[in-house]
Amino acid sequence: VPGALPEPLIDELSRFAGQLADLAGQVIKPYFRKPIAVETKADRSPVTEADREAERRMRAVIADTYPEHGIIGEEFGRTAADADIVWLLDPIDGTKSFVTGNPLFGTLIAVVHRDRPVIGVIDHVMTGERWLGIQGRKTRLNGEPVATRACPRLAQAVKYAYGVECYQGAEAAAFTAVGERVAMRRFSADCYAYGLLASGFVDLVMEDTMNPWDYSALVPVVEGAGGVITDWRGEPLGLASDGRVLASGDATLHAETLGVINA
Amino acid sequence: VPGALPEPLIDELSRFAGQLADLAGQVIKPYFRKPIAVETKADRSPVTEADREAERRMRAVIADTYPEHGIIGEEFGRTAADADIVWLLDPIDGTKSFVTGNPLFGTLIAVVHRDRPVIGVIDHVMTGERWLGIQGRKTRLNGEPVATRACPRLAQAVKYAYGVECYQGAEAAAFTAVGERVAMRRFSADCYAYGLLASGFVDLVMEDTMNPWDYSALVPVVEGAGGVITDWRGEPLGLASDGRVLASGDATLHAETLGVINA
Repeated sequence: VPGALPEPLIDELSRFAGQLADLAGQVIKPYFRKPIAVETKADRSPVTEADREAERRMRAVIADTYPEHGIIGEEFGRTAADADIVWLLDPIDGTKSFVTGNPLFGTLIAVVHRDRPVIGVIDHVMTGERWLGIQGRKTRLNGEPVATRACPRLAQAVKYAYGVECYQGAEAAAFTAVGERVAMRRFSADCYAYGLLASGFVDLVMEDTMNPWDYSALVPVVEGAGGVITDWRGEPLGLASDGRVLASGDATLHAETLGVINA
Repeated sequence: VPGALPEPLIDELSRFAGQLADLAGQVIKPYFRKPIAVETKADRSPVTEADREAERRMRAVIADTYPEHGIIGEEFGRTAADADIVWLLDPIDGTKSFVTGNPLFGTLIAVVHRDRPVIGVIDHVMTGERWLGIQGRKTRLNGEPVATRACPRLAQAVKYAYGVECYQGAEAAAFTAVGERVAMRRFSADCYAYGLLASGFVDLVMEDTMNPWDYSALVPVVEGAGGVITDWRGEPLGLASDGRVLASGDATLHAETLGVINA
């Protein structure tokens, strides 16, 4: 592919992404189920010192190793965000899980090359599960290849969603329309839901109000496992997407769901 | 207490309850994340061979060891349910988690003596966590004492709920009224939420449509950790309760929440 990153560089960056996930896990794990101050940000989401320390440490090693790369993180914003290669960091995706003693929070790390996510890591330090997605290669969970499962119809689908929306807001009609058609629904799983989708246990994840650091890492993981992940119009996810995300393990199911959303 | 079970018998039965949880875990674990047929029961909840085999094995060892005791299980119904001592069994609480590769399903085992839950086990085989509650004693997580945390006000409370209801049905007004007043909500956690409450990470769990095998084990676990668990009128939970459950780590919060529910 003209303009694509060379494979040896992809290898190097994906190893480095794994080291970043190791580092974040080492920072976060000692804070889990210990007393910690929970602050509320402007967007009403919670944040702790664990989120901030993990992102600070990751940013420092990126800046040391790849000073020419950009960084966009949930807690500390944008640095050289117009660089060719940008790191997207969400130190704790699922801070509500983290602060309530629930082990299913994750760390999200993505490499975005010219607005296209090419490497994604979904790391769950408490369960010891790491999904690694690389554009054009098979997604792996702890080194073993994984694949989405066939599920071409909404009526058979297992759907996960963030859930706090509970069908409020401008997107209520779409959530309700899709939710009423699926076989099974679960809520509040954060990025773990996309790992389960990549591993063939969940068919559909539908969310809104996501940020680039929430969804960029998911793209190579889901696509490398055989799934489809786009915005709600079916467009590829990039840094300027509107935060509405639809992932499916099956392209036919994804198309049917887009039809319901946009009916 | 006149008519109470003697302490040595309580000790014996609680050890035996732990052995039942070991057995259920041994049966269930090999089925996790493996292909398994998912059937839908009359109440529209899913069931698998893992649920049935685990309950069958537990019932067999109870019948061998305590043939005079009653048994009420989710999958195989009632045996001598009017006995003085009755075992309540839910082999997989959170079958929706189990069949979607989510490790936070649990096994629930309770001893009910004359309609009063006196021993409760919440066991999570995939995370290696077992909460054991015994009437009049401190609740333990893997042998270590745990306690609920103080949180006297709804406005500061973290609330967990089953979530599929999403505020539909006859109870919608109560769910909405409570949900709008809390600081943070999470959904779809099943019995893990009560373990987190007993350990002081969650303040409130509010659910409806629960069965005796869902809630009986929770009573000694929550009470032994310093919490309060009743139906939505504030009445103690027994085999004939209506399936509406309100648990709180803090008695003042429990009272405030009852007031909102019944306003």
